[in-house]
Amino acid sequence: MYPLPKGFQLAVSRADFRKKNADRNDLALMLCQRPASVAGVFTTNLFKAAPVLVSQAHLASGLPAGQPCGVLFNSGQANACTGALGMENCLKSLDMVAKTLSENLPQPVTPAELLPASTGVIGAQMDMLAWDRALPGLVATLGTTDLETFTRAIMTTDAFPKMAHRVVHLAGGEVCLTGAAKGAGMICPNMATMLSVLMCDAEIDNATWQGLFARAVNKTFNRVSVDGDTSTNDSLYGFASGASGVRVCAEDVPLLEKALELTLGELAYQLVKDGEGATKVMHIEVSGALCDADAEKVAHVVGHSQLVKTAMYGRDPNWGRIVAAAGRAGVAFVPEKLRVTLCGVELFREGQPADIDFDALLREPLEQVDVQLQLCLGDGPGMATLLASDLSHAYVSCNADYRS
Amino acid sequence: MYPLPKGFQLAVSRADFRKKNADRNDLALMLCQRPASVAGVFTTNLFKAAPVLVSQAHLASGLPAGQPCGVLFNSGQANACTGALGMENCLKSLDMVAKTLSENLPQPVTPAELLPASTGVIGAQMDMLAWDRALPGLVATLGTTDLETFTRAIMTTDAFPKMAHRVVHLAGGEVCLTGAAKGAGMICPNMATMLSVLMCDAEIDNATWQGLFARAVNKTFNRVSVDGDTSTNDSLYGFASGASGVRVCAEDVPLLEKALELTLGELAYQLVKDGEGATKVMHIEVSGALCDADAEKVAHVVGHSQLVKTAMYGRDPNWGRIVAAAGRAGVAFVPEKLRVTLCGVELFREGQPADIDFDALLREPLEQVDVQLQLCLGDGPGMATLLASDLSHAYVSCNADYRS
Repeated sequence: MYPLPKGFQLAVSRADFRKKNADRNDLALMLCQRPASVAGVFTTNLFKAAPVLVSQAHLASGLPAGQPCGVLFNSGQANACTGALGMENCLKSLDMVAKTLSENLPQPVTPAELLPASTGVIGAQMDMLAWDRALPGLVATLGTTDLETFTRAIMTTDAFPKMAHRVVHLAGGEVCLTGAAKGAGMICPNMATMLSVLMCDAEIDNATWQGLFARAVNKTFNRVSVDGDTSTNDSLYGFASGASGVRVCAEDVPLLEKALELTLGELAYQLVKDGEGATKVMHIEVSGALCDADAEKVAHVVGHSQLVKTAMYGRDPNWGRIVAAAGRAGVAFVPEKLRVTLCGVELFREGQPADIDFDALLREPLEQVDVQLQLCLGDGPGMATLLASDLSHAYVSCNADYRS
Repeated sequence: MYPLPKGFQLAVSRADFRKKNADRNDLALMLCQRPASVAGVFTTNLFKAAPVLVSQAHLASGLPAGQPCGVLFNSGQANACTGALGMENCLKSLDMVAKTLSENLPQPVTPAELLPASTGVIGAQMDMLAWDRALPGLVATLGTTDLETFTRAIMTTDAFPKMAHRVVHLAGGEVCLTGAAKGAGMICPNMATMLSVLMCDAEIDNATWQGLFARAVNKTFNRVSVDGDTSTNDSLYGFASGASGVRVCAEDVPLLEKALELTLGELAYQLVKDGEGATKVMHIEVSGALCDADAEKVAHVVGHSQLVKTAMYGRDPNWGRIVAAAGRAGVAFVPEKLRVTLCGVELFREGQPADIDFDALLREPLEQVDVQLQLCLGDGPGMATLLASDLSHAYVSCNADYRS
């Protein structure tokens, strides 16, 4: 079991937001002692769910200092596209939780110190009676809830809880990073129905922490794709409690940034591996492009191609589909310079297939979960990577089920 | 059975390019008498198959006048990504056919008057012995082959042959338009593994015909999507033989253009309806955008969204996925102004769901093949339409089969 960094407490409860999810927790709370540095990264979708808008507003105005701050997660109701009533309900749920916590904790908690995060079906209004029922459970479990119980409470179609942990030795001592995430469908670079929280006990100023966190997210969560759809609710929170007493000095920053990247990278990998119906993780690497943006475009088009995804699911080294996808990406390169390498086997170069029995060579490698796919477009400096899942019968089943 | 316009002859033969396709024709020839006006529209993929490059070169240099010209289709081998040998084989196949035709027709045919079009698996080299075997069949069936037999010879994963026919009354008399198409997967705006030929017996100058044809393609074939993948081989040919003796005058042009649009539109609709595994045709209409390009972007993102496609397959009016797709299209609009209407039922407006029992209202309409989906983004003049298929288990089966 992964330990929590110092200064954090978790709680879970059961609100029964959806009949379907009965018999499991669907509410989770993370509280962090103060002073803490807090960062948030959110969906780029024009339709931002009420909890996203509220979280952004709370972060923008600065969380009032002094009392514990935290994230309140619920699964089963996205509270997205729910208009004024959705916003009202979101604020009401924070009020209810803050009031209950204040009555039961040594220090009061105000609603402005809580960041809401919801996942579930778009368009359904929250069931406020369910919130009422769930409040005692949150208080009862606060501080005794472990990471896995917490992570399971925010799962929707996830097959397994996503967690990561790392210890890093800084000049002043040891600090600890622990992360949890949920998300299985609607996952795309620039965020998805993905909720995640990263807890760290280093002492670091807010501006440095926010910069580190945003850069690490960009190199990890923004480089994965399940179905190319981007959700209305994606939220990724980073808290640095400072409770380890280890102050981050200038020379520590690269070390901490690397640890943050590795921890978030592990969570992002697990998201793709548990993509709805996924049987493969394609590690796509595009190089030799004129610029990074060009490389990213090609990686995305290849990683989102239904034909490439179904070929991978079929364990079929059908490189023609990969070449065709690269060729329609809207990126200028010399077709004859493209080289395609799958699981270490070069399949295509100088405008034609390699003269090898690639079916035989790739039979075994394509049975593995992790598949390396490299495209070199030419001699340019542009590079990009992307983790993408395949497209299976199970994906269709999962998403064609009425109102999944 | 649809009649052929005057001045056209069809032929088919069996080359057995693929063992899988044994026992069926896989070679088809269309010959058109001269003088004729000829137009072509081709894939925008960077990787253009040898037959596409050769057709573009032949059209660009102008087909030598005097003798019959035509299109030579083969299915089973795409001759794409096949390098110098692929190009050599493509030219060789035209030589062989031209020589055989010249020996058997009253007028000689030169290779430069033939336009090649291939479909099949990318990367496989053509089997030239198969061409040899098939030549006598072409000669034997020329002029006695009907449209359906011809269309069936160019099918790959198509479930049914796609044909359309129309008669239009111009000032000088009646002219006839007949079209044939193949294509089921890898279909996307800006062309797909889609091969098609439109035959017309009007007398019209080359420049006017090419303009008419390109505009009509843009309004039809470039407004359909099956899987968002664009092939290396897409080719669409338009021939006007002039054999009706009816000369197109200035006031006839709008009439002929409309007829061309309707005929190509029927073929394009059939392509989507026969999309691999498709059970639905979504008629997506986006309006109220700032400009047409914005409307097109939204239509494409909604039509390509795996989550929207699987919801349609599941007959699930899960409008949240539609709204979320529109919101991630990268198009600026005011979220509160979006209105979403499915099968005539308004589901979403002013940032929230309509207060109706949409599940009950849409149960029956969503059982139909044709589903109307309208998105109004605001008050702008921008509009776009798109025909898109759904995403089913059968799509995955079709494409995850080894080397389909």
